[in-house]
Amino acid sequence: MPLLTIVIEVESKYRSPGNEKVEGALARLGARKIETTEMEDVYFSHPSRDFGKSDEALRLRKTEGGGELTYKGPRMNTESTKAREEITVKVDNPLAAQRIVERLGFKEFCLIRKRRSSYLLDKLRVDVDDVEDLGEFVELEVLTESPERAVGLLEIARKELELQRQESRTYLEMLLEKQTIEKSRRL
Amino acid sequence: MPLLTIVIEVESKYRSPGNEKVEGALARLGARKIETTEMEDVYFSHPSRDFGKSDEALRLRKTEGGGELTYKGPRMNTESTKAREEITVKVDNPLAAQRIVERLGFKEFCLIRKRRSSYLLDKLRVDVDDVEDLGEFVELEVLTESPERAVGLLEIARKELELQRQESRTYLEMLLEKQTIEKSRRL
Repeated sequence: MPLLTIVIEVESKYRSPGNEKVEGALARLGARKIETTEMEDVYFSHPSRDFGKSDEALRLRKTEGGGELTYKGPRMNTESTKAREEITVKVDNPLAAQRIVERLGFKEFCLIRKRRSSYLLDKLRVDVDDVEDLGEFVELEVLTESPERAVGLLEIARKELELQRQESRTYLEMLLEKQTIEKSRRL
Repeated sequence: MPLLTIVIEVESKYRSPGNEKVEGALARLGARKIETTEMEDVYFSHPSRDFGKSDEALRLRKTEGGGELTYKGPRMNTESTKAREEITVKVDNPLAAQRIVERLGFKEFCLIRKRRSSYLLDKLRVDVDDVEDLGEFVELEVLTESPERAVGLLEIARKELELQRQESRTYLEMLLEKQTIEKSRRL
């Protein structure tokens, strides 16, 4: 039986100063490229709970190779990063997983498509994202049981990659806000 | 991307006339033994829907090799079999899957442990079960898109394996009824 993996994800997201530039800097720093993937993230609403209010999320990530189902708990804020409980299982068939979730009363309410190139730089994971309708972003992430110690590591990487404009909203929040603004403009 | 597998499971369950006897008959008929596994089936209640009334079930099956999450839809009754929609995904980490499901408000309300030996006999699957607290059973199952045609196949196998006492309740129903009876005796 595998061990239960609950990781605290400490991450920090920035507007990219240009993905090509960032990937060049990563190469110079000796970061190891893991992969480039197209991802489709489906977010669901709960049948009887307001995820917006409880600050939770249920996400089904579909990639070419398979999929994973992730629960994200409420954010515990430290200064400039967000930490939250994240539990993930890999599923062999993302379409069947979506069908199960929908049969249970969860409803798809947002779809986010992105192209992600992932790098490892020491204990840090760097995701260089090109998000449909939102633009280019860089996410720094440390998986750890000690959120505080992670912050120092993030700060060093931030400087080396020249990331200056932090973005504290999730892609989900950004897309929902953008859709709300566009809708009000049309009225 | 894998195809979405929705199968209609047509199955028929019987009190076993003795698992050794049944497995002997299966060997004589040339059935192919697939495996013998210890299984732990966790059933969950829904956060806002009464699965008892809607005749649905959410089950997490834990085996030595991994796990699977299954949604079972309401039964569509044919004469002596039960057919219901069944959607399953394999998950790489059953404990994490249970944690996700519980974080979403589902609650474990029943646990069924069994030792199952599975056989294939033509298009028929035969499960020879030893269920903790319930006893020995034999399940015949055809996975098909045509419930009606499956019934003939089940009937032939039933006779060859000398299965006479049909049991239309699920293990879950049987265990819940048993617990209710034991509870009322204690009062």
